[in-house]
Amino acid sequence: MPEKYIGGIEPLDKAAMKAAMTRLDNLVKPPGSLGELETIAARLAGISGQMFYDIAKRCVIIMAADNGVVEEGISAAPQAVTYAQTTNFTKGITGVNVLAKQFATDIIIVDVGINGEIDHPMIQNKKIRHGTWNIAKRDAMTRNEAEQAVLTGIEIAIKAAKDGYNLIGAGEMGIGNTTTSAAVLCALTGVTPEQAAGKGAGLSDDAYRRKIDVIRTALARSGPNPADVLDVLAKVGGFDIGAMAGAFIGAAYMRVPVVIDGFISIVAALAAARLNPLAKEYMFASHASFEQGYKHAAEALSLKPCLHLNMRLGEGSACPLMFAVMDAACAIMRDMGTFEEGNIGEEYLEEMKDANFHIGGL
Amino acid sequence: MPEKYIGGIEPLDKAAMKAAMTRLDNLVKPPGSLGELETIAARLAGISGQMFYDIAKRCVIIMAADNGVVEEGISAAPQAVTYAQTTNFTKGITGVNVLAKQFATDIIIVDVGINGEIDHPMIQNKKIRHGTWNIAKRDAMTRNEAEQAVLTGIEIAIKAAKDGYNLIGAGEMGIGNTTTSAAVLCALTGVTPEQAAGKGAGLSDDAYRRKIDVIRTALARSGPNPADVLDVLAKVGGFDIGAMAGAFIGAAYMRVPVVIDGFISIVAALAAARLNPLAKEYMFASHASFEQGYKHAAEALSLKPCLHLNMRLGEGSACPLMFAVMDAACAIMRDMGTFEEGNIGEEYLEEMKDANFHIGGL
Repeated sequence: MPEKYIGGIEPLDKAAMKAAMTRLDNLVKPPGSLGELETIAARLAGISGQMFYDIAKRCVIIMAADNGVVEEGISAAPQAVTYAQTTNFTKGITGVNVLAKQFATDIIIVDVGINGEIDHPMIQNKKIRHGTWNIAKRDAMTRNEAEQAVLTGIEIAIKAAKDGYNLIGAGEMGIGNTTTSAAVLCALTGVTPEQAAGKGAGLSDDAYRRKIDVIRTALARSGPNPADVLDVLAKVGGFDIGAMAGAFIGAAYMRVPVVIDGFISIVAALAAARLNPLAKEYMFASHASFEQGYKHAAEALSLKPCLHLNMRLGEGSACPLMFAVMDAACAIMRDMGTFEEGNIGEEYLEEMKDANFHIGGL
Repeated sequence: MPEKYIGGIEPLDKAAMKAAMTRLDNLVKPPGSLGELETIAARLAGISGQMFYDIAKRCVIIMAADNGVVEEGISAAPQAVTYAQTTNFTKGITGVNVLAKQFATDIIIVDVGINGEIDHPMIQNKKIRHGTWNIAKRDAMTRNEAEQAVLTGIEIAIKAAKDGYNLIGAGEMGIGNTTTSAAVLCALTGVTPEQAAGKGAGLSDDAYRRKIDVIRTALARSGPNPADVLDVLAKVGGFDIGAMAGAFIGAAYMRVPVVIDGFISIVAALAAARLNPLAKEYMFASHASFEQGYKHAAEALSLKPCLHLNMRLGEGSACPLMFAVMDAACAIMRDMGTFEEGNIGEEYLEEMKDANFHIGGL
């Protein structure tokens, strides 16, 4: 049962964070002048309890699943693309493959509900069902299935941590999942379908209007309870979203930092944070997705993405880019010299400290 | 004389860009879904004329100089820090050193006007004078000196290109240079000192008010001609800003992509673009500086930074981070498979293309 893990997340190590911030303030730069890099370095210390946390071994977990709602014509791509692209992940030719390789990142591919049979040693078979039901007509899944999706994600993340991964990213592949994510976002936060839904990976104006109608219909039909994340996931979610929410929980439970990709990923992160707000302490936002619902989820999580690239691919593709930013944060902490080593006097240091330019948001 | 180089910048290779965009649209992803990574890849093709441009050999050029205006008490740090920190660049302990090392970047350090003698094999002595005059009381430099600063930057960038650097970043070190940069920004664009000036690397409220007064005084005293960049640089600029403007010109002249760091760097980039608007085609914005004047300069250049990190260090420190983003763009172009290789059908491709989701801003 997921409760053990959801309830088992611990707060960050405040003493380790404080020690990290003290060191950061004594590095040869105006205090706080490396901005988010310093915040990231301090948070990594709080997560790991270590001043010099090593993120060299890292992975992106890709949860792949199909969504029954595609029969409503709300996606630019046919459902078969979920299967085809998940297979492509094993060939090393997709966006996430290339970016993962560029930034020394492994990929873990999990089938949590693709509508088709995949038998490949690189793809873990954790299939819950051959795609969800159509949320325009009935609930996406049973409550048990929602729980199974979350538990699967938790187990995958825990296994990754036990395999030595010190940094995890959460991505997905599932045609139709910007629709389900938008519905989950509406249910959890009260934003409107118009605010939550974007044009996905490339949608015509007609299909976009259908998408909004479908979300409104699904919410009106099922009346998900915003205080009950599993109810929301079961009624209007997807196996991928549930499994990703589980991955955020599992990473936090294991005290491993976890990076959010784009829109679907941040909606799953929000679901995880609603299960236990402490999960948020372990999350890092990567890029501001082009998908318009992203910003509402980011606001609900009080997270600010570091990368503004207008990306809208999914697959976990922005996680390796964020890993590079986090590499920079670790390098600062590890390799910069102190004021003393830099022959810059105390009076400078004191004056800068007086100016109250410290790390924001901590 | 700089005119030869300023006038010698050529437009991008439109055919190479078009070929790059065609390839990008056929990679196994919805067209345009990698956002700015695609834009960067296409621009690199336009700059280099090559579909697969290699940016493995890259450098950050750091222009170091002092500013007479520090005697007005507009900086949190004493002038001696320019000398000390420039020396620290040779020790590998500063922010830019660490980030450059993390992202396989060389550093080129140039003394264009430090108030002190530095004799170090890693620091090029191109000193114009021992710091500018105080812009609150008189022009920063003569017109000849401004021209010399620009020419020095041009020559440094041309030399870097001839030495095989395929990607250049432009950074600086100079206590007081957020004041001179703000003054140059006001002179070039008409924004007010309140809009242009921020709190630098860490300034008290009193010193911030002094800074704004100094900028207003300098502009009123000297009346720089916005249509004459050398006049602006001479009256309210600095040797570092002039040399960086030259580096942007020199890089563009050599058809080498050049990355803008923070506030001082983007003001120099704006000065270069006013010397020849074609220079802008070779520029890439890295991070949105915490320094508030940054956004006005970015708007004047119509450039959007990819990284939002609240950094305010200078030194060219954000350039290596942007190089990593550009590495990602090059990897996409070089390593991703096509739709055909991905077994995703023509009908998908056609449908996505119909949706008009193409690369923005090109």
